[in-house]
Amino acid sequence: MISQRLSLLRKKMAEHDLDAYIVTSADPHSSEYVSDHYKCREYITGFTGSAGTALITRDKAYLWTDSRYFLQAAAELPEEYELMKMLEKGVPMLSEFINDTLAGKRVGADGRTVTAAMAQRLRCILVPDLDLIGEIWEDRPADDMHTVEELDTAVCGESRTDKLRRVREKLGDKTLLVCASDECAWLYNYRAPGKIYDPIPSAYSIVSADRARLYLSGVMTDKLRRSLDADGVEICPYEDIDRDVKAISGTISADSSVVNSYLSGLCANKKDEPSPIGIMKAVKNSTEQQGFIDAHIADGTALTKFICNIKKLCREGRITSYTELDAVKDMEMYRGQQHGYIGPSFATIAAYGPHGAIVHYDPDENTNIPCEAHSFLLVDTGGQYSCGTTDVTRTISLGTLTDEEKRAYTAVLRGNLALGAAVFPEKVTGSNLDVLARMPLWENGLDYGHGTGHGVGFISCVHEGPNAIRLRRADTPFEEGMVTSNEPGVYITDKFGIRLENLILCRRGGEMYHFLTLTLAPFDRDAIIADMLTDREKKLLNDYHRRVYDTLAPRLTAEEAQWLAAETAPIE
Amino acid sequence: MISQRLSLLRKKMAEHDLDAYIVTSADPHSSEYVSDHYKCREYITGFTGSAGTALITRDKAYLWTDSRYFLQAAAELPEEYELMKMLEKGVPMLSEFINDTLAGKRVGADGRTVTAAMAQRLRCILVPDLDLIGEIWEDRPADDMHTVEELDTAVCGESRTDKLRRVREKLGDKTLLVCASDECAWLYNYRAPGKIYDPIPSAYSIVSADRARLYLSGVMTDKLRRSLDADGVEICPYEDIDRDVKAISGTISADSSVVNSYLSGLCANKKDEPSPIGIMKAVKNSTEQQGFIDAHIADGTALTKFICNIKKLCREGRITSYTELDAVKDMEMYRGQQHGYIGPSFATIAAYGPHGAIVHYDPDENTNIPCEAHSFLLVDTGGQYSCGTTDVTRTISLGTLTDEEKRAYTAVLRGNLALGAAVFPEKVTGSNLDVLARMPLWENGLDYGHGTGHGVGFISCVHEGPNAIRLRRADTPFEEGMVTSNEPGVYITDKFGIRLENLILCRRGGEMYHFLTLTLAPFDRDAIIADMLTDREKKLLNDYHRRVYDTLAPRLTAEEAQWLAAETAPIE
Repeated sequence: MISQRLSLLRKKMAEHDLDAYIVTSADPHSSEYVSDHYKCREYITGFTGSAGTALITRDKAYLWTDSRYFLQAAAELPEEYELMKMLEKGVPMLSEFINDTLAGKRVGADGRTVTAAMAQRLRCILVPDLDLIGEIWEDRPADDMHTVEELDTAVCGESRTDKLRRVREKLGDKTLLVCASDECAWLYNYRAPGKIYDPIPSAYSIVSADRARLYLSGVMTDKLRRSLDADGVEICPYEDIDRDVKAISGTISADSSVVNSYLSGLCANKKDEPSPIGIMKAVKNSTEQQGFIDAHIADGTALTKFICNIKKLCREGRITSYTELDAVKDMEMYRGQQHGYIGPSFATIAAYGPHGAIVHYDPDENTNIPCEAHSFLLVDTGGQYSCGTTDVTRTISLGTLTDEEKRAYTAVLRGNLALGAAVFPEKVTGSNLDVLARMPLWENGLDYGHGTGHGVGFISCVHEGPNAIRLRRADTPFEEGMVTSNEPGVYITDKFGIRLENLILCRRGGEMYHFLTLTLAPFDRDAIIADMLTDREKKLLNDYHRRVYDTLAPRLTAEEAQWLAAETAPIE
Repeated sequence: MISQRLSLLRKKMAEHDLDAYIVTSADPHSSEYVSDHYKCREYITGFTGSAGTALITRDKAYLWTDSRYFLQAAAELPEEYELMKMLEKGVPMLSEFINDTLAGKRVGADGRTVTAAMAQRLRCILVPDLDLIGEIWEDRPADDMHTVEELDTAVCGESRTDKLRRVREKLGDKTLLVCASDECAWLYNYRAPGKIYDPIPSAYSIVSADRARLYLSGVMTDKLRRSLDADGVEICPYEDIDRDVKAISGTISADSSVVNSYLSGLCANKKDEPSPIGIMKAVKNSTEQQGFIDAHIADGTALTKFICNIKKLCREGRITSYTELDAVKDMEMYRGQQHGYIGPSFATIAAYGPHGAIVHYDPDENTNIPCEAHSFLLVDTGGQYSCGTTDVTRTISLGTLTDEEKRAYTAVLRGNLALGAAVFPEKVTGSNLDVLARMPLWENGLDYGHGTGHGVGFISCVHEGPNAIRLRRADTPFEEGMVTSNEPGVYITDKFGIRLENLILCRRGGEMYHFLTLTLAPFDRDAIIADMLTDREKKLLNDYHRRVYDTLAPRLTAEEAQWLAAETAPIE
């Protein structure tokens, strides 16, 4: 089947005199989740992972993907493909490969699925207006069309008129091309609650001093349409973006790392700079902050009930008939009981034992395993609520733990507590603070291969920038109102995985900033070696647990509250 | 007097049809310490501070300097000058000022005293071959000429032949233009022990695959001359660098942030990149590491004797007749008793009470004050030894301390201990680790306005790159063998200053790196609030103090050793 598709593609390539063709898994907006319409790379390779790019030449075919997917790609790729393992020694990056072997040659792509930044790195002749997969994909799914609703100012805290004014202050006389769908949703105060994970419909916008144009792919409610109209926002057909970008005469401000190369190529005068919306969106206003707090009370209640039930199954000897998929289902069930719950903010990771060491594991029918009465169940899960977004990880002990497991758990907990307790002045970045979460692990010869924290959107993408916490390239200073994850971990291949993730809200008191931990759910006292904690760490843990209990107990059953009281009792 | 000089300069400027003239305080090698020959900015402004740049236009005169020198510059500058306070709000940088007011105009300079990087930022017509100060300065001192001696391989651990081979491996077929004098001294294994602070004579070098040419300003010993000759190094007249750079035909590797703009302008094909010598020099070999260790035993002995004597003066009520300059003199006296001592590695800072809050204070006859029987004497001092270089700060309590003083001291100590105890994997940078030293201060609402650490040369410049510890732009990963300072502080204007500085040597054990603290001298137990320390911090302090005692006691008098035993007794 893939062979046939490759033949058809190569025929099209020959028609256009192409030496090669790039197929990505991106949509035109650099979205994290792409609709089936844009799963072109999956169509042409058979590889179903979320990240990967294919390059098809006249006689060869290559797929680049990262270490999360090496095994899966090797299993799914047909023999026509060579697997290019990214960051492995001696393996060139896609751009290096193209520059080495196809410099000056004609290479085609659907430029809407390649960022301008990527295109700029290529020294081939990029032909960016050829959607050849579209030409050969007969039953290609249409792009998703969701109902798009107004997000009331009472919920999001700032009118679109005020947001537009702030954006225009930054813009001066430039015209802003917004290519990121979530920036459009933030700017114009709308969401598509029916869209799973991120309630963000595909959209572009063009903002200048006197016009604001929105190109949305979705079905607006009448209320939203009237409201946008009343605020002077021009509602344009999604397809008109090409024509309208071409017609802009002044300087266009566009971020090459987000804007797609096709649109970028239509800009007459482009200034490559970060969108001013990025930082505005990351700094949550007081209404959004309160929404986050409320969402985390609801979410913490659901998660605590979930953990309490698992612990009960353990006590009653029933955990061995409980599977990872049961955990996914239960988590959704407990969240469904909470006021304002819309849906998951990403696919829940429920990973027992060795599966916990696979950082991006989420269970399906093929991988699903039952729990056992020892080691850990790692649950990384999040929800979209009508007042905010959550993302939390707890690692739950199911019985006997080894000393190695306990030591690792306690080290991860110490890292989480240290970062959560940071106090710092202005201009401090995530690359400065990351070490706080890692030092307790490093002291024990442990580490983790992922970043410590990512920004979180407000009823939006669960991963958003520019705030982040990692050792390198997290250079955006923290500001009051930013919400970031705090998620150190330890992964011992074939044995177990531990991750403890809270969301933390940056606040300011006097000259100094600190974090308020939004997430409310107990850590697992069975996994903690108290002697490894300093007095200060014990106090931080006990204070947090007291807050968890005080906030959640009134929302639990008597049995659950009793369990939580014991689980959160002070550790001496 | 300055008026007259300005008139003469403007006459010269008119002869060359210049709209302005730049006068720096740099030498051709971007050295930290410049000889009197290059103090042109002092000559034309009257301002004697170490940092500052003058711009003289046809009818105005400006001096840029940083906050350390605002008061001094205001006092010393004649009325002809406008003081440009760097980094103050609304004050343009020199390059911004030139680009705003002199774009396209003819601006002269002695290009050997302006870096290529600076010149590249200017949008005027820079005329870089005019040493007009030289033309008007009648009694200008000649450049220093020091005796330059071979540094034996037994001391520095690697022959110049081996160093040249390593440099050439990095160079490929490029030609390296070395403009930094300390890089030449490292590469060719020589020093000028008679030169105060940094025993580094001015030098250039040109290294290619088949030639190594050294242009040294100094008097080589016969032994050095013979030895260089035997190793195939061509000894060229210092003045010939211009002619020889012009004659290079291939690509010239040169670092624009170091190479001077005059020489840079002579390069036909320049590639701007960091010198490969920078990182090689920063990574000390095992012989250099052992030298550092030995130098710190000698230096710690001197410093401990010095502190012991101060404490005795306090006990005997004689501290009030002891001045800052007495401390400078004593420190030199105690160092002079140590085997292998050559001289100070920089001007000793001895700052009593409020003077301690002036970060770059060093006492002279005008500022010198006697100590009082309370508050702190801050002593930041270092030595050049025949086996290594030291840089240390201790803050000594002279009697009653306020609670504020003790709290600040303890917080600084906690920061110093935390950074010194860091354990971390490869690729971790100074911008990652800096927070460890600051967090205990931030938690107490305190901070300091300088970096936490700088690299230290081996019998060379006490400040060297590229390793550094600071929140921003310290992106060089730590490597085994790097020596860096660890010097958090607190400065309360008009009250007191505290800085605690150790040098730390990066070592590797298995997968992880850690620091060995080289500096050996007691912290001041009278200034420590034990209750502010965690058990871990007490252990770190007590372990360090034990090492200080065990190493130094055999080298002290019985009275001194007795005092040190009490000073370093475990803190519970």
